[in-house]
Amino acid sequence: MEERKIKVGITHGDINGVGYEVILKTFSDPLMLELCTPIVYGSPKVAAYHRKAMDISTNFSIVNSASEAQEGRLSIVNCTEDELKVELSKPTAEGGRAALDALEKALGEYREDLFDVLVTAPLNRNVIQSEVKSFPGHAEYIEKQVGRNRKALTMFVKGDFRVALLTGNIPVKDVSGSLSKELIIEKLEIFNRSLKQDFGIDSPRIAVFALNPHAGDNGLTGDEEKEIIIPAMEAMGQRGVFCYGPYPADELMGSGNYRHFDGILAMYHDQGVLPFSTLAMDEGVNFTAGLPIVHTSPAHGTAYDIAGKGIASEESFRQAVYMAIDVFRRRRLEEEISARPLRKQYYEKRDDSDKLKLDTVEED
Amino acid sequence: MEERKIKVGITHGDINGVGYEVILKTFSDPLMLELCTPIVYGSPKVAAYHRKAMDISTNFSIVNSASEAQEGRLSIVNCTEDELKVELSKPTAEGGRAALDALEKALGEYREDLFDVLVTAPLNRNVIQSEVKSFPGHAEYIEKQVGRNRKALTMFVKGDFRVALLTGNIPVKDVSGSLSKELIIEKLEIFNRSLKQDFGIDSPRIAVFALNPHAGDNGLTGDEEKEIIIPAMEAMGQRGVFCYGPYPADELMGSGNYRHFDGILAMYHDQGVLPFSTLAMDEGVNFTAGLPIVHTSPAHGTAYDIAGKGIASEESFRQAVYMAIDVFRRRRLEEEISARPLRKQYYEKRDDSDKLKLDTVEED
Repeated sequence: MEERKIKVGITHGDINGVGYEVILKTFSDPLMLELCTPIVYGSPKVAAYHRKAMDISTNFSIVNSASEAQEGRLSIVNCTEDELKVELSKPTAEGGRAALDALEKALGEYREDLFDVLVTAPLNRNVIQSEVKSFPGHAEYIEKQVGRNRKALTMFVKGDFRVALLTGNIPVKDVSGSLSKELIIEKLEIFNRSLKQDFGIDSPRIAVFALNPHAGDNGLTGDEEKEIIIPAMEAMGQRGVFCYGPYPADELMGSGNYRHFDGILAMYHDQGVLPFSTLAMDEGVNFTAGLPIVHTSPAHGTAYDIAGKGIASEESFRQAVYMAIDVFRRRRLEEEISARPLRKQYYEKRDDSDKLKLDTVEED
Repeated sequence: MEERKIKVGITHGDINGVGYEVILKTFSDPLMLELCTPIVYGSPKVAAYHRKAMDISTNFSIVNSASEAQEGRLSIVNCTEDELKVELSKPTAEGGRAALDALEKALGEYREDLFDVLVTAPLNRNVIQSEVKSFPGHAEYIEKQVGRNRKALTMFVKGDFRVALLTGNIPVKDVSGSLSKELIIEKLEIFNRSLKQDFGIDSPRIAVFALNPHAGDNGLTGDEEKEIIIPAMEAMGQRGVFCYGPYPADELMGSGNYRHFDGILAMYHDQGVLPFSTLAMDEGVNFTAGLPIVHTSPAHGTAYDIAGKGIASEESFRQAVYMAIDVFRRRRLEEEISARPLRKQYYEKRDDSDKLKLDTVEED
């Protein structure tokens, strides 16, 4: 492996929320700078404003690009106009513009291979929406910009508790119509691959939530289970993917049986995020699986209500940095292993003989 | 108040599940028999079968009706055919029939005023469905049978955590179409009244969950918040009901801010039951508010997977009995107070004088 530290690109998110607070607090710990080289895409002026307002002692260097970032330092690339007004706790069009500018600059530098993983601070989709017609969310935007035609899967992670969403920020009335066998198969494949490749789980066990109360109660309360979800799961089973259910979400959570699974696929936003937040908001991480880029973010939002007060916890953001680094390392390790595969040894499982059949080893 | 103990009518639910186990375990504690007089509507033979199978020492008397029930004893009224076959862990039509027979017998005796409150053990809607075309659930059935034209509200309760459901066992695809300003007003009124009358909260604070992710994000992810939920809440506000939101469910739960409210109104089954089960399954109680009858049940289901093993926890059932008794007592107290109102004393809050204006006391 290379000697250099992993470069973590960070977007500042909404300048009127808790973004800078959690970034600065995370890198006030010198150990974090030994772990990685962080580059914030944002505004040095706004960073200085938050630092002063909350009396956080983190130092940073202003750089023109991630290529100039030095190890052992927090670097900030200016991506915004000079006269940027911070209005704490307020959603402003200026703040939306600054969040998007930073994200675009970051993705540009990612394309030039100037950093390794991306961690995004929370932003407010509403104020961005006023600038660009279609900002559906970080995962969708990143998928489109740097996904290289791969599909994204949004996952919420805390320790061994991993919940993925089949559908994202869509109205509840559109959920049923968005379900299809193909979509479930697509998402289960990404989920399964990510659990193996990104989390190092050999044979992942995936639980699937039912869409309807009591898993449709044999058709009494909905037929998507029978018509769509179960056929998709059977197709996955034939491909060797271990998926179980569909379970009534409340029963799987209430019984504690969710702990027996490496991942849970929820059918829609609240069904996945609600139990996750209830259990794990403080240290939860949002991970975008399935793409070549490793992208994480804290599970919380802009938290306008406590912006600028100095009381936001940086734990979720710190965990987002850790997870991005972990996933990146695991993927790199995986690549190195598969680049130098072990020589195959023909040892038949069903053969009773103890001897390796060394005479049948294939030629190089 | 009367001296006699409160009579608790209990239906045995599904004979192949954990119903008898949790009933018998609950009343193996002599203190429970000092608190109330329990009458089980079910089958003495099946009760004996479960008692023997799991070696539970609870004794019971066989009676013909709740009118014969004696204090200090667990009584069982036979409501089923003699040759009833128990098939542990299996949904059977016979079991469905026995569950329904017991419920009907119980409601018949309730109409005759033979007991005070009803606690139902869990049943399986599916096997009942095969007998009667429309068994939508306990709350709906009881509303229809003994509701006297009042409307029911299903509530899940553990301590101060109370979640009510706007809509019940319906498919997710029908949720949006079931929402209306009228329905929300109706349910909020029942909820508010129940929090006052049944739980003794003077000015209840009710949080309302949004339907869509991020509360519709100003229309980006759904417009039911703007069009239906907020207008209904405003109408309630004008009637002096304190309701707040609509909040994104994941944010209210994740931030822990749900603790600031006396109740939460969820828009659909999983949205309410999922966070409740995640936090409170073990001791959770299901309460049917809004009806003249006080009805509770444990939050868990038939639990076929552990039926007959002797490992089911009776805690949720015991709490259901406690809550039914508490609510009944509070309502009776309320009635007594309003039957003999205190004489009004004209003490003006905004008046600085310390004296009561006794000269303005109204005539009897």
